[in-house]
Amino acid sequence: MSAENIVWKDSFAKRASRMNASEIRELLKLLDQPDVISFAGGIPDPALFPTGVVEQAYARILADPARSGPSLQYSVSEGYAPLRAWIVRHMAALGVPCDIGNIVITAGSQQGLDFIGKLFLSPGDTALVTAPTYLGALQAFNPYEPRYDTLALGGNRTPDSYREAAAAAGGRVGLAYLVPDFSNPSGETVPLAERLALLDLAAALDTLVVEDAAYQALRYDGEPVRAIQALDVERSGGIEQCRTLYCGTFSKTLVPALRVGWICGPSAAIAKIVLAKQAADLHSPTINQMVMHEVAAAVYDAQVEKIRKVYHQRRDAMLAALARHMPEGVTWTRPEGGMFVWVSLPEGMSGAALLARAIAECRVAFVPGGAFYGEGRCDNRLRLSYSLSDPGQIEAGIGRLGALIRQVRAGA
Amino acid sequence: MSAENIVWKDSFAKRASRMNASEIRELLKLLDQPDVISFAGGIPDPALFPTGVVEQAYARILADPARSGPSLQYSVSEGYAPLRAWIVRHMAALGVPCDIGNIVITAGSQQGLDFIGKLFLSPGDTALVTAPTYLGALQAFNPYEPRYDTLALGGNRTPDSYREAAAAAGGRVGLAYLVPDFSNPSGETVPLAERLALLDLAAALDTLVVEDAAYQALRYDGEPVRAIQALDVERSGGIEQCRTLYCGTFSKTLVPALRVGWICGPSAAIAKIVLAKQAADLHSPTINQMVMHEVAAAVYDAQVEKIRKVYHQRRDAMLAALARHMPEGVTWTRPEGGMFVWVSLPEGMSGAALLARAIAECRVAFVPGGAFYGEGRCDNRLRLSYSLSDPGQIEAGIGRLGALIRQVRAGA
Repeated sequence: MSAENIVWKDSFAKRASRMNASEIRELLKLLDQPDVISFAGGIPDPALFPTGVVEQAYARILADPARSGPSLQYSVSEGYAPLRAWIVRHMAALGVPCDIGNIVITAGSQQGLDFIGKLFLSPGDTALVTAPTYLGALQAFNPYEPRYDTLALGGNRTPDSYREAAAAAGGRVGLAYLVPDFSNPSGETVPLAERLALLDLAAALDTLVVEDAAYQALRYDGEPVRAIQALDVERSGGIEQCRTLYCGTFSKTLVPALRVGWICGPSAAIAKIVLAKQAADLHSPTINQMVMHEVAAAVYDAQVEKIRKVYHQRRDAMLAALARHMPEGVTWTRPEGGMFVWVSLPEGMSGAALLARAIAECRVAFVPGGAFYGEGRCDNRLRLSYSLSDPGQIEAGIGRLGALIRQVRAGA
Repeated sequence: MSAENIVWKDSFAKRASRMNASEIRELLKLLDQPDVISFAGGIPDPALFPTGVVEQAYARILADPARSGPSLQYSVSEGYAPLRAWIVRHMAALGVPCDIGNIVITAGSQQGLDFIGKLFLSPGDTALVTAPTYLGALQAFNPYEPRYDTLALGGNRTPDSYREAAAAAGGRVGLAYLVPDFSNPSGETVPLAERLALLDLAAALDTLVVEDAAYQALRYDGEPVRAIQALDVERSGGIEQCRTLYCGTFSKTLVPALRVGWICGPSAAIAKIVLAKQAADLHSPTINQMVMHEVAAAVYDAQVEKIRKVYHQRRDAMLAALARHMPEGVTWTRPEGGMFVWVSLPEGMSGAALLARAIAECRVAFVPGGAFYGEGRCDNRLRLSYSLSDPGQIEAGIGRLGALIRQVRAGA
């Protein structure tokens, strides 16, 4: 079987070009070059990881004769019960009273998105996504061959306009997906009124809302906006009646590489997702779930407070540097939390072309915006992450980038 | 959204009944009841885990300033390079010379099966599976809506008969899946001549062979049979030309709950699987891959030798107990390795009905055979696992089960 003779299933062949991981891999490699200032990553700063606590948790569990065997053995697909119980309390504090049967552990929130695509999107169904949206959600949904339509939050599209477009494409609206807090990539937060309007829209379309809460805990200023699932529970009367699936993760708050996230939702939906989890990988690593439970129980609040302080300072440094160095015609979002600022270049300037010059000429990296769209695209956008750089690097990198944009604008 | 209003995608609704995890969960719960002798599990004995070595590896990595950060950080989807390099040497020893680009790390071999279904099975395509076959493979493939046809190893079906049946069902033969060594559930090993005939069949159908090697290292006696991928590489001229995807795992040899397995195959196929991995969960837990690398490098051979001795003794105990206690009309396989014996009850006796009585009346558990079929089914089969029981429990449990079967046969 040579490469050209491999018979891929239709959907994968069709979608493979959209699942372009190489771009991201190339960007990740840049992080290893010490002279490049990278605003590309969008990943937490490992210097802030609670490494000692993680180390002690592994040591304690593996040295305990009652726990070491189970920690290394096969376990149930829904996840480690004490961790699910911790998450139940966490969700209650967010305004979502629920039960252990409403929680399934996933390999980060990314795996939750894969399962939701697998269960709710048939080929030709429509997924409503914001423009821009999280690239990884598009990658997770693409193998299930949805059509994308733009979720116009605060816009004036009617439910019928979504329904008719979906029907014309041969399917139904399978779900509406968004990152409502400090979105990846835009950094923006969906205000309360738009959250409520989204729930109205979802009710009118009788569709799911997928709330990707990856950055929700990372607010630096401004007033918290209630979780969409909490608003849904309040309106519908309870978790069992709500239409929101909440995708949570410890990746941004504690550590990413244990790969522990969760979905919270009506127990009937969770039970089906548990079957998908069993079919996909049996269960998440038992020991990592036990460790995450110990770490969350010991330091979750303190850790969130600690990283908020650091990222807050970096966010401020980036906004100040942008104001100082960007020429007229360049605009950007002002995130109240999270890891990202979304920059709009002057019309006609390409983010992808700028990246090539930025790396070659001034050793600055970022992610060009074109990849973050389900349909259409704005090529003159950049995603800048401030999570991995200290204020001095941010000032230097944005300074160099601003100078390059001036050059490009001047036709140099 | 109440449970009955959830709109599942067609395929999941159709297949959910086949993905019945509750049966297995109920069986797993039995393991916690100390008076039940369980031959149900099919999981390794945790008393044999190299727990101390695992503990030391976590401690060493997390205490090392150069490694602790990366061990907890996001990493590349293809997996930890030193672990992939270890697997390259392991595959070479099995007769498969290959390169790091031929290996992707998966969450156990189960996740490998999910990705292979996702990439190679469109709805209506045919998956050839042995009868019986591994239940988890059916669960992994089901969401992609294949049709199943029975792979008749050593039988006299022509390639045309498979091809025509697949075309009549509206698809093509997407893959042929098997566990060639000490199969789950049958315990049987596919002899060399049948492996070569399978490669002929796959070439005639221009289809993939999926070699699930979960138990391959656990041979207790008899002559090793070469891996199908090794035979394929020899015939086709190299890994890049072969049509076999080899699914390996550390779950049966080292520990299951770090969830580390791999797929070995042509680099063009592996590159696509890496994209599926990225979309599904970004990457396997970095620290678990680093720990598995240290553990495999330190104790793989010694660990395999140690567990082989113990399971060998248990296999002997089970075969002896079956010979001693089973009435006429009951037959069983004689595995040369692995964890399973496959028992045929007299025609008309139901394995599922026997399980209910076995638990209630004699506190013995096993898995009834009906679940292990892609199409058709033989209800008079049982899967017995000897991996978790010592010879005394095996003798006692098989004694009770034999007595119960005699009673059932006598109509009592």
